[in-house]
Amino acid sequence: MSIRVLNPIAGELKQIDRLLAEYLKTPYGEIEPLNFHTVEKTGKKLRPAITILFGRACGLDEERMLKLGACFELLHTSTLIHDDVIDKAGTRRGHATHNAKWDNTLTVLYGDFVFSTAMRLAVELKDIAALEQISRITRELVSGELLQNASAFNFPPVKEKYFEIIRLKTAVLFGGCCGIPLLLCHGREKANIGFEIGENIGLAFQLIDDCLDYIADDKLGKPRLIDLKEGKATLPVLLALEKGNDIVADIVQKVFENREISENSGQKLTRELREGGFLAETIQLAKNRVRQALALLDNFPEDSYTGVFRKICTFITERDF
Amino acid sequence: MSIRVLNPIAGELKQIDRLLAEYLKTPYGEIEPLNFHTVEKTGKKLRPAITILFGRACGLDEERMLKLGACFELLHTSTLIHDDVIDKAGTRRGHATHNAKWDNTLTVLYGDFVFSTAMRLAVELKDIAALEQISRITRELVSGELLQNASAFNFPPVKEKYFEIIRLKTAVLFGGCCGIPLLLCHGREKANIGFEIGENIGLAFQLIDDCLDYIADDKLGKPRLIDLKEGKATLPVLLALEKGNDIVADIVQKVFENREISENSGQKLTRELREGGFLAETIQLAKNRVRQALALLDNFPEDSYTGVFRKICTFITERDF
Repeated sequence: MSIRVLNPIAGELKQIDRLLAEYLKTPYGEIEPLNFHTVEKTGKKLRPAITILFGRACGLDEERMLKLGACFELLHTSTLIHDDVIDKAGTRRGHATHNAKWDNTLTVLYGDFVFSTAMRLAVELKDIAALEQISRITRELVSGELLQNASAFNFPPVKEKYFEIIRLKTAVLFGGCCGIPLLLCHGREKANIGFEIGENIGLAFQLIDDCLDYIADDKLGKPRLIDLKEGKATLPVLLALEKGNDIVADIVQKVFENREISENSGQKLTRELREGGFLAETIQLAKNRVRQALALLDNFPEDSYTGVFRKICTFITERDF
Repeated sequence: MSIRVLNPIAGELKQIDRLLAEYLKTPYGEIEPLNFHTVEKTGKKLRPAITILFGRACGLDEERMLKLGACFELLHTSTLIHDDVIDKAGTRRGHATHNAKWDNTLTVLYGDFVFSTAMRLAVELKDIAALEQISRITRELVSGELLQNASAFNFPPVKEKYFEIIRLKTAVLFGGCCGIPLLLCHGREKANIGFEIGENIGLAFQLIDDCLDYIADDKLGKPRLIDLKEGKATLPVLLALEKGNDIVADIVQKVFENREISENSGQKLTRELREGGFLAETIQLAKNRVRQALALLDNFPEDSYTGVFRKICTFITERDF
């Protein structure tokens, strides 16, 4: 899946793929096919892209920029791999998941291997302050997964927990993509603005992702209404429940009890979320987050890289996949 | 499970427990009971013990010594947690496993959490050279698990692969326990001797562990003949196959096909391994490894801590649990 807006850094993104293949290579365990799947059947590579843009904008040396981008991509990938095992997911990004192609045993171990490779890339930055942040981000990522798991299928779902989950499991990693290049080049104070920019973008990205689960078409390559079947009540649903929408409450409660949803209930739910304005409200909140990020970006000199970043921000809220 | 030989560092080992509890604490995901299980239902704590002994012997400051010991214990624990999920193991060290008490989903995520906590402790050493080594060790640990998984149930099993697996999954971590305190205090050259001492001890430890699977009594708290049922042909079996023992070959091949072993076959196999001298030969190889380690230890001045380490070495080859 490629995004036209990333064309200006297509060369760097190819380098990321090369680095991923190089660092994942190992003589042990016959995992070449899994590595190939990881590198080739990949997603939008938004995290390395953002890392590259902030790295270029602040003059980070190419080697560390690429290693950091590859590290974030692998951290993200390793959580997806374990996620897919847990959720017994068969497809992601329109491709078969690792666990669908190989067995759960190998997939769990392979997730650990990808995680350890991300750590290796991080250590090669040779910067303790950056490592402290990457270590924090890693722990928060995993904490987000734990919190999501503990909250799954709980009725009624709690909005504060939802925001805590998406902050931990998505936003902090985007924060690292913007913040750590700044940390490496300009120290902690500038980095904090970067973390904040990234976290806002990450929240926006996840809010839109959660909407797409209700309105996505085939382009996304994954079935709709997945979140609810996995016990996750995302913001559109939470807003509907907050407004006392009994139709939505009834459907959600039943799905959480039976762990499946009929075609008919799915359509009814989606209609309620659309006609009640809950999807629109969620998209609006995402756009507000992007606006906050862009306002913070004014702290940095404008160049061609921040220009691309602004376009990514627009893409994030306007994408349909 | 406590070992009398560790009494001189009982205070430091208590500090390790405190540190583990402190670092595993998190507001997310309701994992307090799992953390309690990790810290309390624990094993012999050999890895932190060895780290403490080498740390004390070379004058490593207490904070880093304890953090390094706790880091190694958690690295080890995280691989056990995922291992037990994969092997569907119900008990370990005489206690229920995490996956037996909680579900696989939570246990996989919890293993990731423990892993990320180990990384946090490692980063807090604030030493890039040490982090490079811990990153290598982590990757080798996971590679050992991958190689073991790829080799499981293969008949005939290959002795060279067995030695590669136990080096990766066990020996390199013991290497770190001896080598990294030296690296932090005296640089790379001394550290290399430490890595070599630790790897020898680790190999000896694993060789004895693999014998105990055939001769263990109830004290070990785990059922016997586990390895074979999990598709692992360990050294006593490999030596018997190498000598052309048809009874052993026949039983192993059948167990690998059916993934279970009858009481009768188990007794026959154990008798062959004992009477053919294959268990004794394995124990002898372990003792040779310990001898090599102790010879290398002569490179360092003798003190009360190296004295305790010598006793641990004897314990490793003479233990019956």
